[in-house]
Amino acid sequence: MQIKVIAFDADDTLWVNEPYFQETEEKFCDLLAPYLSKHTLSQELFKTEIGNLKLYGYGIKGYILSMIEAALQISNHTISNEVIAKIIQYGKELLEHPIELLDGVEQTLETLQKNYKLVVATKGDLLDQRRKLHNSGLGKYFHHIEVMSDKQEKDYTDLVKRLDIHPSEFLMIGNSLKSDVLPVLGIGGHAYHIPFHTTWAHEKIDHKVEHANFRDFEKITDVLALFE
Amino acid sequence: MQIKVIAFDADDTLWVNEPYFQETEEKFCDLLAPYLSKHTLSQELFKTEIGNLKLYGYGIKGYILSMIEAALQISNHTISNEVIAKIIQYGKELLEHPIELLDGVEQTLETLQKNYKLVVATKGDLLDQRRKLHNSGLGKYFHHIEVMSDKQEKDYTDLVKRLDIHPSEFLMIGNSLKSDVLPVLGIGGHAYHIPFHTTWAHEKIDHKVEHANFRDFEKITDVLALFE
Repeated sequence: MQIKVIAFDADDTLWVNEPYFQETEEKFCDLLAPYLSKHTLSQELFKTEIGNLKLYGYGIKGYILSMIEAALQISNHTISNEVIAKIIQYGKELLEHPIELLDGVEQTLETLQKNYKLVVATKGDLLDQRRKLHNSGLGKYFHHIEVMSDKQEKDYTDLVKRLDIHPSEFLMIGNSLKSDVLPVLGIGGHAYHIPFHTTWAHEKIDHKVEHANFRDFEKITDVLALFE
Repeated sequence: MQIKVIAFDADDTLWVNEPYFQETEEKFCDLLAPYLSKHTLSQELFKTEIGNLKLYGYGIKGYILSMIEAALQISNHTISNEVIAKIIQYGKELLEHPIELLDGVEQTLETLQKNYKLVVATKGDLLDQRRKLHNSGLGKYFHHIEVMSDKQEKDYTDLVKRLDIHPSEFLMIGNSLKSDVLPVLGIGGHAYHIPFHTTWAHEKIDHKVEHANFRDFEKITDVLALFE
């Protein structure tokens, strides 16, 4: 294995993310509780998000817009202005949420950056992700940040080209089998999976991954043993 | 002048953009006409946009959210659900607006790409800008797209570093003196200005630019004479 660049997913790999979305969703469900059960509200919101994904992409602003749209629909256009204002407020709080680093991240980055070029490879909103990287204090370990509009094979092929390396010299580390592992293996790269306890429904897959270039770890510091 | 990379601003340099925002703003003012004069509505929306700029950044999704927030405020929380739904609809139409190339753009790019590395350097939303570049059919002329979270000197310094060139080897072409010209001159690069008839208030400056590395053109094809 001749790795030149190690790319890290950001949300739920370097720092906590999905639980904050789920907290926001809880608050959204509380606001809409008079209309539907919590389970159905979550389903409706998810449907709206997926329906808007192609247009809005990943990130918090699209999520706020989808919550507003879902609230209008669910209430049959009878929702109060106060609820709309609350949704915007919750969205802004999500944007400004302090960064909470995951265990072992800093130690792992500090060790690996001595011998490898490290980049962040994340989908989402450019401004949000740059802000989070800045606030995380991890910026010094990374050569740069690659914000991808999606994480499909095509997006990784473009990324590897921009990095000017062969796919076999690329290692991706992340928490999503669907986004961080399968497409990378598909183009001939290496991928390590560090699971996170909470996964967005859209990122779930229902089969096992087996591949010579793939490894599954319990925690991020376990990766270091391979590079000793 | 030893230029290695020529970067083009996208919105209102390669294709029409600001007039579509202004059309959307007209429709927003029509919706809110019962509350305030058109002039005051525009001012209130602008204030909301600027207030949210640090949090939302540039781009259409933040603009939609600012229109909704302004509508709630302006109406003192009495706006109908139908108006909110209309604002979301107008925003989605803006996201899906067909691309209208500006005159001479394709000819200019085709000529310059023979001898220079061309990139797109734009602020805004990554997904929006990639979609526009794809739909414009101009993708083939560019080495890649650089979506910047802002266009201040620091952002151009980072860009030039990523491109692995000296600032004096960098030329920026764009329609905004504030975003495409002044910060580039500030870091020792070259900048050409191609004015567009409509400029967003936030991009306006009120003084003349004079600098050895600066040129002002009437239309984009005028640039070609310099490279013959």
